[in-house]
Amino acid sequence: MRYLITFSYDGANYSGYQKQPNLRTIQGELENALKKISGGFNIDLNSSGRTDRGVHAINQKAHFDLDKKITLYKLKCALNTYTGKDIYIKNIQIVNNDFHARYMVKKKEYIYKINVGEYNPIYRNYIYQYNKQLNILKMKKQSKYLIGTHDFSSFANKEDPKDSYIRTIYKISISKSKDIIVIKFIGDGFLKYQVRNMVGALIESSESSLNIKKILEEKNRKSFGKIAPPEGLYLNDVKY
Amino acid sequence: MRYLITFSYDGANYSGYQKQPNLRTIQGELENALKKISGGFNIDLNSSGRTDRGVHAINQKAHFDLDKKITLYKLKCALNTYTGKDIYIKNIQIVNNDFHARYMVKKKEYIYKINVGEYNPIYRNYIYQYNKQLNILKMKKQSKYLIGTHDFSSFANKEDPKDSYIRTIYKISISKSKDIIVIKFIGDGFLKYQVRNMVGALIESSESSLNIKKILEEKNRKSFGKIAPPEGLYLNDVKY
Repeated sequence: MRYLITFSYDGANYSGYQKQPNLRTIQGELENALKKISGGFNIDLNSSGRTDRGVHAINQKAHFDLDKKITLYKLKCALNTYTGKDIYIKNIQIVNNDFHARYMVKKKEYIYKINVGEYNPIYRNYIYQYNKQLNILKMKKQSKYLIGTHDFSSFANKEDPKDSYIRTIYKISISKSKDIIVIKFIGDGFLKYQVRNMVGALIESSESSLNIKKILEEKNRKSFGKIAPPEGLYLNDVKY
Repeated sequence: MRYLITFSYDGANYSGYQKQPNLRTIQGELENALKKISGGFNIDLNSSGRTDRGVHAINQKAHFDLDKKITLYKLKCALNTYTGKDIYIKNIQIVNNDFHARYMVKKKEYIYKINVGEYNPIYRNYIYQYNKQLNILKMKKQSKYLIGTHDFSSFANKEDPKDSYIRTIYKISISKSKDIIVIKFIGDGFLKYQVRNMVGALIESSESSLNIKKILEEKNRKSFGKIAPPEGLYLNDVKY
C-alpha cells in the first residue's frame, strides 16, 4: 500500500531534510518511525523535495510503501508518537501505486518572512531578523521580472548541477503586516537555494540599483550579493 | 549610576529568570555580561519580577548600578554582545538612585497565547498547543469575575507563601485571530503562577460549569484543575 503524508516541521534543530549518517534530519526521524511501525523493515520516504538546514515546512508531502494492516488514524498516531515534537503529521491518505511525491509535483509554494523592525529574540529561528526597513514598492517592482519561465542559473547553487535551470514562477506576492514582510512564491519547482537567492536579490534591490531583469539575463550567480538565511523560509504547500 | 533596562527574551532554553547555580538563567546570563562590562565586579540585577521556566518576555525591566564611564549606546551594544541570541536589550536609560525596578511597579501586563487549531510544531515553544476549540463567550463572561481587587489565594502557588494574596486586576481582554486566542491581563502585580492558573481556570470554564466567582470565594487552589503551561505566557509590559 502506498501512502501520502502531509506534514509540518520546525527545521531549527535539524541538519536539514535529507538523511545523513549520525545527524538528526527530518527524513531520518520519519524513516526511524516507519521502521518501528513496520516491525523493523527499512522503508524509504520519498518527499516532494529536500529543504535545507534550518528551513521549515507547513505542508511538506512525501510517500512511502507499507505492507501492514493499519487504519489511517492509527498510522497517523503512530507516526506522531515516534517522531519528535518538532514534526507533525497532519494527514495521511492512500494513493495509487504509480503516484510519486517528487516526480508528480505540479506546483510548490514557499513563503519567506522578514522582520524589518527591532530584533526579536522570540522569533529569531522563524523570521529573518533583518531589522532595517525595506522599500516594498521597489521589491514588488523587481519581483515581477522573476515571474514566468526563465533560466534561473543566476539564482541556483553551482554545487548542485542540474540538466536544466529552467523553471516557471506563476506568482510572487509581497505583503507587510506591522514589521513583518511576507513574500510568497508559487512555481512549478525551485532549484536548490533558488528561493533564498531570490529573496537576497529582492532585499538588495530595495537598497541599491540592482536590477533583477539584468541578473536573470547574466545567468551567473556572482552577479549579486547575499543569500537570505534559512530561518525565514517555509515550504508552504505542494500540489499534485 | 543607576540604569534601567528594557529587554525581551525567549524563555524556551532557560531554567527561568532567577539565578541558580549551574543552570542557564536570564538573570545569570545578564549578570555575567555586566561582570564583563564592569571589569570583573559582581553587579546585582533587580528585575520587575521573576518569570518561570519557559515563560517569555517582550518588555521585561530591571535596574542595576554601574560605575563606569560608558555611553548608553555602547552599554546597550556590550550587553547585547555578551548575552545569547535569545535575550535582547531594547533600551537603556539612566534613572534616579532611589528608583527600584521591583518595588516601584505600578502596572504589569501579561499575555497568554493558545492555539485552538491543529498542532503546530513551529510554535510549540511559543503558543500553548491546546488544539481544541474553546468557548470564547463563556471565557469572556467568566474572566469578568477576576477583574477588580480580590484575594487571589485560589490562583496562587502554595509553595510561595505571601503576606497578602490581594491583588488588583484592571483589565482582561480575550481576542481570537484565526486559531490563536490571546488573553491579556493588566494588573498591579501578579502572584507566582497566578496568570497560568487563571488561564487554566478560564479554559476549564469553557468546557464545564466551573464558576470563577465561586473559585475566588473558596480561596483554595484545589478548587479547579490544571495550570496552563509556561510556553504560552509572555510578560508584555511593566509600567512605573
